[in-house]
Amino acid sequence: MISVAEARARIIAGLAQADLETVPLAAAHGRVLGVPVKARVAHPPADVSAMDGYAVRTADAIVGARLSVIGAAPAGHPFSGTVGPGEAVRLFTGSFVPEGADAILIQENATAETAGIIVNEAPVAGRHIRRQGQDFAVGDVLLRAPRRLTVRDIALAAAANHPWLTVVRRPRIAILATGDEISLPGEPVGPGGIVNSNSTMLAAFVAACGGEGLLLPAAGDDAAAIAAAVEAARGADLLVTTGGASVGAHDLVQSGLARHGFALDFWKIAMRPGKPLIFGHAGSLPVLGLPGNPVSAYVCAVLFLGPALAAMTHQPQTSPVFVPARLRGSLPPNDMREDYLRASLIWQDGGWIATPFVRQDSAMLVPLAEADALLRRPPFQGTLADGDEVEVIRLDL
Amino acid sequence: MISVAEARARIIAGLAQADLETVPLAAAHGRVLGVPVKARVAHPPADVSAMDGYAVRTADAIVGARLSVIGAAPAGHPFSGTVGPGEAVRLFTGSFVPEGADAILIQENATAETAGIIVNEAPVAGRHIRRQGQDFAVGDVLLRAPRRLTVRDIALAAAANHPWLTVVRRPRIAILATGDEISLPGEPVGPGGIVNSNSTMLAAFVAACGGEGLLLPAAGDDAAAIAAAVEAARGADLLVTTGGASVGAHDLVQSGLARHGFALDFWKIAMRPGKPLIFGHAGSLPVLGLPGNPVSAYVCAVLFLGPALAAMTHQPQTSPVFVPARLRGSLPPNDMREDYLRASLIWQDGGWIATPFVRQDSAMLVPLAEADALLRRPPFQGTLADGDEVEVIRLDL
Repeated sequence: MISVAEARARIIAGLAQADLETVPLAAAHGRVLGVPVKARVAHPPADVSAMDGYAVRTADAIVGARLSVIGAAPAGHPFSGTVGPGEAVRLFTGSFVPEGADAILIQENATAETAGIIVNEAPVAGRHIRRQGQDFAVGDVLLRAPRRLTVRDIALAAAANHPWLTVVRRPRIAILATGDEISLPGEPVGPGGIVNSNSTMLAAFVAACGGEGLLLPAAGDDAAAIAAAVEAARGADLLVTTGGASVGAHDLVQSGLARHGFALDFWKIAMRPGKPLIFGHAGSLPVLGLPGNPVSAYVCAVLFLGPALAAMTHQPQTSPVFVPARLRGSLPPNDMREDYLRASLIWQDGGWIATPFVRQDSAMLVPLAEADALLRRPPFQGTLADGDEVEVIRLDL
Repeated sequence: MISVAEARARIIAGLAQADLETVPLAAAHGRVLGVPVKARVAHPPADVSAMDGYAVRTADAIVGARLSVIGAAPAGHPFSGTVGPGEAVRLFTGSFVPEGADAILIQENATAETAGIIVNEAPVAGRHIRRQGQDFAVGDVLLRAPRRLTVRDIALAAAANHPWLTVVRRPRIAILATGDEISLPGEPVGPGGIVNSNSTMLAAFVAACGGEGLLLPAAGDDAAAIAAAVEAARGADLLVTTGGASVGAHDLVQSGLARHGFALDFWKIAMRPGKPLIFGHAGSLPVLGLPGNPVSAYVCAVLFLGPALAAMTHQPQTSPVFVPARLRGSLPPNDMREDYLRASLIWQDGGWIATPFVRQDSAMLVPLAEADALLRRPPFQGTLADGDEVEVIRLDL
């Protein structure tokens, strides 16, 4: 048995980073940027007014002066002439500042007359002018890669005139549920059968982590069927199996994989829930075999599949984020297995309070859905008392 | 001018909740559940073994006893007979417990012989048996509505045998950029022109908040064009415009809207950035007019559009979440406008430290993309010193 951290490191070391693809800007939100975004235009594109008012020359825009308004430059319609002595041009927010002017007389400080204005307060040179390239200049690197693109990044790339972005391709994750007993929701359930929740759960999990799930038709407990399914996963970046990884049946999955020259890396992790976890390669195809119990499958997805997808999509942070919390209640000493307890979490007095559920059965989905966090207990941790510090993974998926 | 909170309340009061639709379970992750999910099957479907071992009767499974193995019940293949005195049935994790047995003898506590086993440790009645319906029984309400569906909720609905879920329809948000100066990324930019970043930003924002963005072709600064665009937004649940809402040009948007009998609710909010914000109805179509400056548009999206989408999708929490933080640096007294400063955020000594950026220009996208939070300053807040408590909205979009 190896530790959770070692298993995670070995899984990540056994995966390849995904290649890049080019997508429309409008489809790039949430994707991981593959190459840096450089500005193709300056922003603002020219010196522009930050206010409604008049472009003037400070030399003659003194209090009481009467200036002749020789034109207007609403946004999108720049004034092509030059502002000369005693002249002004009407501007609005975003208007290009015409040549000859060095100041903005805001409209609150001017009195409009027929064909002219009277200056009520002298403008300050340069004030209320946004300079060309003040936000960014042509060629500036605006977004570095890799970076998960936010809504604001999309705005920035748009302003920099990029209709397309090059991003990390979504890793294709083939999902194979095994077991004679399982059926998908809504399909006939045989005697001794059970509805398979892992496949839809994993497909949603993969999509939420930036991958693309590919649901393979389920394979029964039969090495030949499993081998055929593995064949169908060719072209995927990772095959995730569920079920058949415990003592009784793991031979079937491994036997099926063996027909593809499966090289096993490890298959037991010192953790609870989820001890039986297979990792290895069938030729060039990495294979992650998750337990069949839905809670175990989910916890292993959080601890291993999420990090695997983070690594495949070039992200620097691959480990789950652990947050400190205070324990509510007490816990007996832990054994040699790293334990992940389902817990509720409340924010109180500036910190998190974690209350582990009484029911921790790895087949129970109701408490899993109600959990806010996984409370981690290291191997051989001693008794914990109320108020002791623990660490948790907040569950947002 | 009205307050931010009042504006938000009036916007929410002016919107209708979206209707429901039925979607495949595999497409339901992240959607808001519209009707509760009840269990169609029990989970587990029968009493099942939680371990690999043997179904036995405690009455005769005493230490040293030799039991005859009369069959096996791998998962999906229940044993149809009854376990009688001196008999055992081979089971695996998930196997249905056959009639007659009341205990699981785990395989570690048995020695297998030809056609039989020897009991090395007496099993406890009921131990290692997951009872039928222990997770949920038929008819149990598993997921209440409204609820944003997590990956675990998808697993739970799957296990409860739901191939379809009824969810809140994505509100259709028509997005109209106005202005003679704007063009979409990659399109020709005219003299005095600028690339429009608001439309793609808002479309991504809407999608991230559970809506469906509909990009209307941009309208120039012309009331007839704006009126035509409003006509094209019929059928949408909300029209969001950008630009044309400041003193110089707002008449155009309002004039265009007026041709559709626009009833203005308000158009000025005591906030910075983003003072000019229109809200009202063109007939039955709610219209939210955002400022054209990209930072103002984004901040108004966070403060008003996100809450609007939350309300339309039946969510109880509509206000942005404010988190306490400590100020790094100092700030001068605030005026009558509620201020939202772009700030960086770091976690230190058990709390957030917020450092407002020096550059707060509402046209600058680079600092916006770099921000971690919006630091809120209430109207007329006094001078703030280093270490003072402030409140921030963390930016995850």
